[in-house]
Amino acid sequence: MSASKLYVVGLGPGPASMRTPQAEAALEAANDLVGYGPYLARLPDRPGQRRHASDNREELDRAHLALTLAVQGRTVAVCSGGDAGVFAMAAAVFEAVEQGEPAWRTLEIEVIAGVSAMFAAAARLGAPLGGDFCAISLSDNLKPWELVLRRLRAAAEAGFVIAVYNPLSRARPWQLGAAFETLRAALPTKTPVAFCAAIGRPDEAIAITDLEHADPALADMRTLVLIGAPTTKVISRPDAAPWLYTSRSVAERA
Amino acid sequence: MSASKLYVVGLGPGPASMRTPQAEAALEAANDLVGYGPYLARLPDRPGQRRHASDNREELDRAHLALTLAVQGRTVAVCSGGDAGVFAMAAAVFEAVEQGEPAWRTLEIEVIAGVSAMFAAAARLGAPLGGDFCAISLSDNLKPWELVLRRLRAAAEAGFVIAVYNPLSRARPWQLGAAFETLRAALPTKTPVAFCAAIGRPDEAIAITDLEHADPALADMRTLVLIGAPTTKVISRPDAAPWLYTSRSVAERA
Repeated sequence: MSASKLYVVGLGPGPASMRTPQAEAALEAANDLVGYGPYLARLPDRPGQRRHASDNREELDRAHLALTLAVQGRTVAVCSGGDAGVFAMAAAVFEAVEQGEPAWRTLEIEVIAGVSAMFAAAARLGAPLGGDFCAISLSDNLKPWELVLRRLRAAAEAGFVIAVYNPLSRARPWQLGAAFETLRAALPTKTPVAFCAAIGRPDEAIAITDLEHADPALADMRTLVLIGAPTTKVISRPDAAPWLYTSRSVAERA
Repeated sequence: MSASKLYVVGLGPGPASMRTPQAEAALEAANDLVGYGPYLARLPDRPGQRRHASDNREELDRAHLALTLAVQGRTVAVCSGGDAGVFAMAAAVFEAVEQGEPAWRTLEIEVIAGVSAMFAAAARLGAPLGGDFCAISLSDNLKPWELVLRRLRAAAEAGFVIAVYNPLSRARPWQLGAAFETLRAALPTKTPVAFCAAIGRPDEAIAITDLEHADPALADMRTLVLIGAPTTKVISRPDAAPWLYTSRSVAERA
């Protein structure tokens, strides 16, 4: 049992070229891979390694399974897209530990950071996160919708660039539109907005617009939406998509 | 001239094991490396590759040099610690492009995302960024100090976990203490606070305390300070450092 170990691995946005050697080593060492099916499907098969694929929105069940296998002496890798700590599996694993068996607290758990979707998207756009920024999940499965709106307002009024995770889903198709409405009350209509889907993967798609014209139909569950701050600028280019960047300087007095 | 390319590379927190293959390929392809001296010193020498090391706080000069070399037909890698887009070189490069020669807009510029200091620190602690979060640079070199305080207050009141970059320096040793004072007015005294220095490097050091006892003397310029939200919890462990995690759920009504 002393050899058992639980890794929580950030796989990055998709391709192996955006995954760290540290993450690869953990995947290599694992007896068992636990994760959302489509993430596991991106990884090569390894002889003797078991896979436990599950559906979306089953994070706590997945964490329980991984912890149960680890206390049995298996080396387990819980696989997350992007960075494991950002709206991903690390919080579910530690929530399960806190509420679960005392033995789980004695496990060796190593979280392996990865390239997050928000930073991969920002890199494709230029430098939109050049100033202070925040990340907000729009899902109201785990928090009240009023709190989501309050956080959006607070972030916009304070001048943060906003990375929006989980912008909508089939069960809540109206949320991103409502978020844009709230932001329009707090930010200039010309504030840049970028829709970034499947960054680093073959179906990558980016659309750049502004808050006035931001259309929720441009997003699906795979999309990260970046909302600029008043200091975010568009650099036009001949025959190419513009770059976005947020000035490191803010002249504004508070 | 058509072969020239400018990479802006996120080196990650330090060790090669936390650097992506994409970043390594850019470093390998470059004729010229441009960056802060200590970051360049972490990279292996390559025959025929030129190094342009500069001091801290010379970001715009560094960006100008890199762009000038690139339009001359060189392949250039601007090297940033962590992720290049997070309080690092990407914003300086695009700021220089916006204000500089028209030819710079025709360059091929590729930003390569990396593992940021905040996500590497979070991974070491558990899952402190499990909910909505923000990142704030405490430096008032480029924005008014009143705005820094206003953002800290807004973030705390809205329930974001806060990652504090550039917490203090020799020129502004008092800022982190003032930030803690402001946060104490908005958050419970038992809110977890973590000081994370040199994550992933041999001199890595972590201290976990709470807002009541948070002592600015625990930080220097290399330290990332994480301030929990009201939903951030400490998981105690027998004979080991505690884990921090932020609950994915918020029961609070706005």
